[in-house]
Amino acid sequence: MKQETKIHSSLKTVEWKNNTVIMIDQTKLPNKLEYVKFKDYNKVADAIRNLVVRGAPAIGVAGAFGLALASLQSKAKTKEKLLEDMEKAKKILFETRPTAVNLAWGLEKIMETAKKGNDTNEIRKQVVETAQKMAVEDVEINMRMGKFGSELFSNNDVIMTHCNAGALATVGYGTALGVIRATKDSGKNIKVIATETRPVMQGSRLTAFELQHDNIDVSLIPDTAVGYAMAKGLVNKVVVGADRILSTGHVYNKIGTYQVATMARQHNIPFYVAAPLSTFDLKNKPDDIIIEQRKASEVTGVAGKKTAPDGINVINPAFDMTPPELISGIITEAGIAKPPFEISIKKLFESKL
Amino acid sequence: MKQETKIHSSLKTVEWKNNTVIMIDQTKLPNKLEYVKFKDYNKVADAIRNLVVRGAPAIGVAGAFGLALASLQSKAKTKEKLLEDMEKAKKILFETRPTAVNLAWGLEKIMETAKKGNDTNEIRKQVVETAQKMAVEDVEINMRMGKFGSELFSNNDVIMTHCNAGALATVGYGTALGVIRATKDSGKNIKVIATETRPVMQGSRLTAFELQHDNIDVSLIPDTAVGYAMAKGLVNKVVVGADRILSTGHVYNKIGTYQVATMARQHNIPFYVAAPLSTFDLKNKPDDIIIEQRKASEVTGVAGKKTAPDGINVINPAFDMTPPELISGIITEAGIAKPPFEISIKKLFESKL
Repeated sequence: MKQETKIHSSLKTVEWKNNTVIMIDQTKLPNKLEYVKFKDYNKVADAIRNLVVRGAPAIGVAGAFGLALASLQSKAKTKEKLLEDMEKAKKILFETRPTAVNLAWGLEKIMETAKKGNDTNEIRKQVVETAQKMAVEDVEINMRMGKFGSELFSNNDVIMTHCNAGALATVGYGTALGVIRATKDSGKNIKVIATETRPVMQGSRLTAFELQHDNIDVSLIPDTAVGYAMAKGLVNKVVVGADRILSTGHVYNKIGTYQVATMARQHNIPFYVAAPLSTFDLKNKPDDIIIEQRKASEVTGVAGKKTAPDGINVINPAFDMTPPELISGIITEAGIAKPPFEISIKKLFESKL
Repeated sequence: MKQETKIHSSLKTVEWKNNTVIMIDQTKLPNKLEYVKFKDYNKVADAIRNLVVRGAPAIGVAGAFGLALASLQSKAKTKEKLLEDMEKAKKILFETRPTAVNLAWGLEKIMETAKKGNDTNEIRKQVVETAQKMAVEDVEINMRMGKFGSELFSNNDVIMTHCNAGALATVGYGTALGVIRATKDSGKNIKVIATETRPVMQGSRLTAFELQHDNIDVSLIPDTAVGYAMAKGLVNKVVVGADRILSTGHVYNKIGTYQVATMARQHNIPFYVAAPLSTFDLKNKPDDIIIEQRKASEVTGVAGKKTAPDGINVINPAFDMTPPELISGIITEAGIAKPPFEISIKKLFESKL
């Protein structure tokens, strides 16, 4: 049991240091752990666009950092001109991933801060501080979530997870993997089974990498072996992240989550979701949610190698919906919601008011 | 609706012609449809070993063809010497895939024929005839199975299948895909959804290829999208092949079959298995069956590209078990067994006596 590395801080997905944005180049994983540094917001935009950084919370903060860089890059002498330059940068940063809720949120928060400043120097100082605070808060939220979540897990549990809801999807620590880190940090001996997560393979490329990196025992399985692993008694609990959670407890997450949850129910294995309150969508209903289709080439090949015949039809949905009846609990930074979710989710939000 | 090609005969996986064995080189699929020809049984052994030909029924016949070639290659002048040469060839052919039941069966059948012959000429003639008859019978069995199975499917059905139980796994026509071909041949308009089938990707490499080749409408999905497709109402029925079926109706098939069956049950979608009577194991019980683990490199990379970190633990079972309560019917060349399977399977075998 190696424990030299501090589990909660060993991977810094995105960071601000000496007026520079530093991030892990996730396109190089799992082969190389390489950090890239940017002083130009256009390079940050490129990095978001090209998935050097990915994961909703991580790109929210990366966008905020990018906009803070833009304020430093601007040669504006007046508040008006500086805001104008920042609006231009905001547009470029936003258009890298226009459907990402967190990116828009991160950029908006920086603009709000900028508008409140009295002069260019104050604005520059405050947007940098705000962006740094957002990064710190992201980790804090995950650590609070982890602490709540860790109480659901027992010594010697084997925990299955799907996709990457880890340090690499956030500023650090992670949501589902944050709960796993917190469980290990609490002194419990645990093991993890990570699904490969086709088509983009965040499980093998990122989750397997980051858990191995932090000395957490992890085994990789193809997505086809979920049922086998559960039927063989190899899994005690499941925890996954979420892209969107409705007030009814319907969870939208990476494609494949729904069948992992169904197999868990089939084998009476508790199925947990870990996500911050910012992931909740309290307005929409299941019928309102459109599941986007991603490009066919993700399914017809892997890492540039063709694995399917030319011109084949492909169905490649980005995520699926897991209904509340398959979910044992939703772990947030404000506590754990348990069924019935209509009531428990409402209470979590009331407790935050 | 293109129908120029005769659906039941467009792909000849393995064939005997002018004392030559001709087979599709499946390692080149889906990129190239290439045939290879052999007059030397050692080359046939190489082809089986290197998965140029795969699929239980196909390698059974390929092995028989290889042994027939060996009888022609032998310079023996006496029956004893010929049998000796053939035993040597049998050993080489058998050791290419030592756990394959059908390969042992195919080779044994040829040796039995050889032993009955009176002289070398008669033996050579009869083993070639027996091997050719085995190939013809394989297709005939699949076509009978297809005819029975096609009655389970309706016009406009969308049928999901997993792995490749097709022409490419048999001499021709296929088991699960044979049922799909027969349904289409009967005039019904159908579509197919093929799962990719990680880790070896028989779904994208072979099933998508062979259905596209035969003008059957096919869409490819990642294995993670099974639940999504069913929840969205995109699937009416499922049909898969089998590696082994017990007298109780427990079905062993490619890893991932069990969760496809579970998702089908969750959505009240009929789940069928298509397999010849030779697939049934009437002796063993579920506890007796050992599920072999395959090499980790299948999961840690694709087509030579690494997709997971070095040294990661991998769980890579070759197949899983689908319990009888998830199965709506088992399609064989002797008819369809329906639950309760203990009774209906027994009846199928009695009808063949």
